[in-house]
Amino acid sequence: MSGTKGYQPLTSATLSTRLGSIAALVERIGHNPSDWKVWEVGDGNLNLVFIVEGQTGAAVVKQALPYVRLVGESWPLPLKRAFFEHAALVRQERRDPGLVPEIWHFDEEQALIVMEFLTPHVILRRKLIDGERVDGMARALGLFCARTAFRGSDLAMDTAEKKADAAMFAGNVELMSITEGLVFTDPYFDAEMNRHTDGLDPVVAKLRGDVAMKAAVQGALMSFTANAETLCHGDLHTGSVMCTETETRVIDPEFGFYGPMGFDLGMLVANFLMAYFSQPGHRSGNELTAHQNWILRVIEELFFTFHTEFARLWNEERNGILFPRSLFEDQGQSSDAALETVRTRIWDDAMRFCGIEMHRRVLSLAHNADFEFITDLAVRVPLEARNLMMGRELVLTGPDIRGPRALTDLARRFNEEDFL
Amino acid sequence: MSGTKGYQPLTSATLSTRLGSIAALVERIGHNPSDWKVWEVGDGNLNLVFIVEGQTGAAVVKQALPYVRLVGESWPLPLKRAFFEHAALVRQERRDPGLVPEIWHFDEEQALIVMEFLTPHVILRRKLIDGERVDGMARALGLFCARTAFRGSDLAMDTAEKKADAAMFAGNVELMSITEGLVFTDPYFDAEMNRHTDGLDPVVAKLRGDVAMKAAVQGALMSFTANAETLCHGDLHTGSVMCTETETRVIDPEFGFYGPMGFDLGMLVANFLMAYFSQPGHRSGNELTAHQNWILRVIEELFFTFHTEFARLWNEERNGILFPRSLFEDQGQSSDAALETVRTRIWDDAMRFCGIEMHRRVLSLAHNADFEFITDLAVRVPLEARNLMMGRELVLTGPDIRGPRALTDLARRFNEEDFL
Repeated sequence: MSGTKGYQPLTSATLSTRLGSIAALVERIGHNPSDWKVWEVGDGNLNLVFIVEGQTGAAVVKQALPYVRLVGESWPLPLKRAFFEHAALVRQERRDPGLVPEIWHFDEEQALIVMEFLTPHVILRRKLIDGERVDGMARALGLFCARTAFRGSDLAMDTAEKKADAAMFAGNVELMSITEGLVFTDPYFDAEMNRHTDGLDPVVAKLRGDVAMKAAVQGALMSFTANAETLCHGDLHTGSVMCTETETRVIDPEFGFYGPMGFDLGMLVANFLMAYFSQPGHRSGNELTAHQNWILRVIEELFFTFHTEFARLWNEERNGILFPRSLFEDQGQSSDAALETVRTRIWDDAMRFCGIEMHRRVLSLAHNADFEFITDLAVRVPLEARNLMMGRELVLTGPDIRGPRALTDLARRFNEEDFL
Repeated sequence: MSGTKGYQPLTSATLSTRLGSIAALVERIGHNPSDWKVWEVGDGNLNLVFIVEGQTGAAVVKQALPYVRLVGESWPLPLKRAFFEHAALVRQERRDPGLVPEIWHFDEEQALIVMEFLTPHVILRRKLIDGERVDGMARALGLFCARTAFRGSDLAMDTAEKKADAAMFAGNVELMSITEGLVFTDPYFDAEMNRHTDGLDPVVAKLRGDVAMKAAVQGALMSFTANAETLCHGDLHTGSVMCTETETRVIDPEFGFYGPMGFDLGMLVANFLMAYFSQPGHRSGNELTAHQNWILRVIEELFFTFHTEFARLWNEERNGILFPRSLFEDQGQSSDAALETVRTRIWDDAMRFCGIEMHRRVLSLAHNADFEFITDLAVRVPLEARNLMMGRELVLTGPDIRGPRALTDLARRFNEEDFL
């Protein structure tokens, strides 16, 4: 894994010179590096991201910085996260081919990944804010979640290989620590880096006063930090998805870690729910109703696809140590009831992670454009309040919500409420 | 970790010569190795175990064999398990001082551990069969389970250290595989190495026909294989405990692995329940009643001690990332309800693991002397049947059994039943 000895951050000025001899790049974007156009586009929280365009194509160059970009050098963060991002991308490509960008080059010492430039793809969060739809997106993401969850777990993998891989990813501990702090803990006390919109205080007080809910949140943290069921993306929100009108791709798995099978699914659904609750800040009338309804249908289809694909994989690729055929089919017994216990476990976990993500994006350090772009705070605050209270409901009663339709019905009810 | 290049198994004849220059040993047992008396006492399933006695003391020398001793060279097993046993002993000594044997010397290449000879200690299983009591045993084991569970978890440890340690112990994968197969899977189908007493077939058929129970068993396997909550002993049965009339020690953690906090507790209680159910094969009348009652009191005290000690550690040593004081006490709120959710989780897991252990010791490869020493099969079979059916009850309804007294009441009921 990366040391820092030869590491140098790229700049727009040095990139062509430094990467101009990488065959895999030159062959794809053009043989004359001095003609390459380079611009830095990193708007994320952690890294340098460049687009480099040559005569015959373009690439993205993503390079880790030795600190958290959002915060600065006062928060160091190891370069080895690029190693884990690359390792996660390789596994995701194998488990759900075509969903992640094609990787052209990886330099561990420089903590940089050269990959396909997705165009004309736009960050999904942006499209949701803008009221745009993406055909097939829910299905693509449902398949991605089901395939990566199942195929990276002891349901499918050789358990010795899986345990060795989990042990390797345990090295991504600093990125896990960010999630453990910012997502699972900071929202529930007066943490230094927290911020929230003026006017939310009564709801924040309600959450922090809810000991049962905080216990459930910390129970979810126990699972996050220890329960290495599968290789998770680790940061699967709508800012980690890029789409055209018809194509969906998943990027940025640098938070990759072994965790619960319901983690990615829950985080993703939370981001759709935040898109849903924030819509009244972006449009009105029929347009609002139509877009909100579409987002809820996305959530339903995402779950239904996950559900169906997970069952297909269960029946066709269940070759790991868990729930072996010798205990069910080989004795002439159906394993459907057993599958249901696993899907229920995933659902329960997903609901809790979903609720927690809805909290931290409004209360902790890293907020969502869905709400942040609503400049009229009088409009924003009641929407954030709905989102926070729905998150609480999911943490407390998620396992009692039976299925995606019950979940979207619940969202509709919270969308009508005034919590302030 | 161990390679095999210089490895040579010890024999009673070569031990004094080969270990006679180890200062830590010579100083304790005597400076004249040619006078040492050596005998091999390994009656376990996996290793060579020698007692070596000199002029001033005695030691135990435990050496791993590159195969499973119980089965033979056809089942290879890596020597590195001695490395993990040693690592587990070091951690257990730190977390509950005085409970494990004092370690005098470790040779990784030779896969051997030289340790204190416990005398006049006898294996606890033997004492339970013989109707003997041990003062303070339940309390000692309850403290051991609570302290190792708590202090090895993210409730107490620095999470980066804990994750690195869990990653290291993931290398003990072959020993975990034994448990995954023999404990969680083989009992529930016609596995090659299985055996069970003639006459049990109707009960075996009932268990194998119970799809809901098998699904719950495999759910427990999911937790065993992935949920790295703490460093478990991994094989904490009454054959891994040595006692005098008043002292209790824990040995043999070569199955050490990171797993659920309820694992050791559940396995241990299963072995007490097997001691309980097997008693009518060893004595009768008042003696039987008294010893059975004593064993159930041991179970109750074990749980009460675990419960109390876990609460004490929760209040005094909760310095990890989980359930931080910032979310509870620092906001003027009690964390008692949160503690209760964690203890409930441990109980639920323990009940399931307990039931599964009760099955595998009667149906899979490695049986218990508790039942095996009952030579009259007409006596043994109905007792094993009670044990198997109680195991099923625990797997299916364990989380509904509220507390140790309810558990021992249930055992009393099963002890009256005829299942054949």
